Amino acid sequence: MTAEFPVPTMPAPPVAVVGLGQLGGSLAAALVGAGRQVSGWDVDPAARAAAESRGVQITRELSGVVVLAVPLPAMTTALDGLTVDPDATVTDLGSVKTSVLRTVGAAYGSRFVGGHPMCGTERSGHTAVDPDLFTGARWAVCLEPDTDLRRWLRVAEVALAVGAEVVPVTAAEHDAAVAAVSQVPHLLAAALAAAAGDAGPLALSLAAGSFRDGTRVAGSDPDFVTAMVEGNSGPTAAALARVQERLIRPWPELIAAGHTVAAAHTTGRTAGPTGRRALRAPLDRAALLALGRAGGVVTHRRAAFVEGWVPEG
Amino acid sequence: MTAEFPVPTMPAPPVAVVGLGQLGGSLAAALVGAGRQVSGWDVDPAARAAAESRGVQITRELSGVVVLAVPLPAMTTALDGLTVDPDATVTDLGSVKTSVLRTVGAAYGSRFVGGHPMCGTERSGHTAVDPDLFTGARWAVCLEPDTDLRRWLRVAEVALAVGAEVVPVTAAEHDAAVAAVSQVPHLLAAALAAAAGDAGPLALSLAAGSFRDGTRVAGSDPDFVTAMVEGNSGPTAAALARVQERLIRPWPELIAAGHTVAAAHTTGRTAGPTGRRALRAPLDRAALLALGRAGGVVTHRRAAFVEGWVPEG
Repeated sequence: MTAEFPVPTMPAPPVAVVGLGQLGGSLAAALVGAGRQVSGWDVDPAARAAAESRGVQITRELSGVVVLAVPLPAMTTALDGLTVDPDATVTDLGSVKTSVLRTVGAAYGSRFVGGHPMCGTERSGHTAVDPDLFTGARWAVCLEPDTDLRRWLRVAEVALAVGAEVVPVTAAEHDAAVAAVSQVPHLLAAALAAAAGDAGPLALSLAAGSFRDGTRVAGSDPDFVTAMVEGNSGPTAAALARVQERLIRPWPELIAAGHTVAAAHTTGRTAGPTGRRALRAPLDRAALLALGRAGGVVTHRRAAFVEGWVPEG
Repeated sequence: MTAEFPVPTMPAPPVAVVGLGQLGGSLAAALVGAGRQVSGWDVDPAARAAAESRGVQITRELSGVVVLAVPLPAMTTALDGLTVDPDATVTDLGSVKTSVLRTVGAAYGSRFVGGHPMCGTERSGHTAVDPDLFTGARWAVCLEPDTDLRRWLRVAEVALAVGAEVVPVTAAEHDAAVAAVSQVPHLLAAALAAAAGDAGPLALSLAAGSFRDGTRVAGSDPDFVTAMVEGNSGPTAAALARVQERLIRPWPELIAAGHTVAAAHTTGRTAGPTGRRALRAPLDRAALLALGRAGGVVTHRRAAFVEGWVPEG
């Protein structure tokens, strides 16, 4: 019965953010706002100055929870020239997780916990910092068979501290899921735009709302998008094949199936407490992963359990 | 040299709108606001009452420019029980044009001019009326080999009166173009949503901006979408095949090609007068269609010519 009442958890450790662009800078600013002790580093002096003006201590000595907030191609070299406390927990914000687990994860072993906040905009860099960026966003935090659960909770607490909802997930399940809802949408947007370009100026002249929505992410930095899909190529190819299977179905069936999913998804996201079942999960890998697989999230950390909810029906 | 100065055109004829839902009700309200004499009819008494309260005269006797603002399946029966002046010009707002030309066009011969304003939202019905709906929108107005150019101008003037930009186009070219920028985006959105549903609750739980944008139109009424794609099945199949050809290219090439088109399109739409070349076109079918094929629009009607612009570069 130790779990009946909220009990104070361990003192919150400091957070050190490496890379102070849109994601890292926003995280650092949000954590300062939440009263956490925050330090950070960026190779760009302008990004360092911007973060310092928001209350971030600029240093090359990193301890507590060390967050790698750099582009995927820079992940393996981001800590070069910096000193990481031997007891620090290391996490990242990269959009794919298996490849980061294989590189950064291999270097830090059980001290590494992969993460991925599902937010960000087409903008980038320290001028795009927004302390509210994570409010209400989902934040995947990876639980591998050898993940130290205490370190996983440290990372989850960082996400919760800035208003995100935590999704416990394995790196492989994460990559399969985001292939379907992030990498494939980028490829479809690119194909839609490119094919409309093939169709000529009259087609583009008549383009309106559905084309604008369907191609919006095609405006993102192509190098960023390429790194994202190439870094998750296997799951992306599998998810794209599922879309192509759907596209050869009879159109009325395809449209009805898409509408059912889209309507349920919109309702689920806007329904608030209705349509959700509150629950608590023990601090146990299997229970946490089952919560994530059911579409659930962790919203609070208590001493001996976490609180959250799963969608109903 | 009759064309050097704007010259008053013929007195603007009355407009009669059949179907007073979102599109027809918005058009009627906008025309009332522009000082035009507007009458209309709807099978729904509530839609008639709403239009009447906005200054639309409710009547079954239609004259001037008669606008069919009803869903595609209702197009051939929309005038049943109504009286159409033998000299009236008949147009429509349907999202496909060849099939309407074959049915309504066959019934009204040279008095029929097909049209399609590229606007509207996921909402529908008379409660979704917005007199500003057409401001800045493209409005395709069809020029077939046997189209009476004076009647074409009457319809174009209705579009210009509510703030739209007119795209001269044949029905066949229109249908090929909107297949690429409207029907295919709806099918891709449906396939993306359905495939994410296949991927399971975890995938939908991690869905964020790119999925939301890419599936937005999958929330539209499935019967409306089905009628739209089935009514333009040949061009839609051809445009979908072009997307599928793009999807099998190497991803970096696909992403770069999509980005180029999307960036140019966004720039073209937001650049204002920059990047556009102003021109005038004679009241001549070939010249007007060439303007439309180049991505250009008509913005003003004068006595012996029209003014407009084409994108540069």
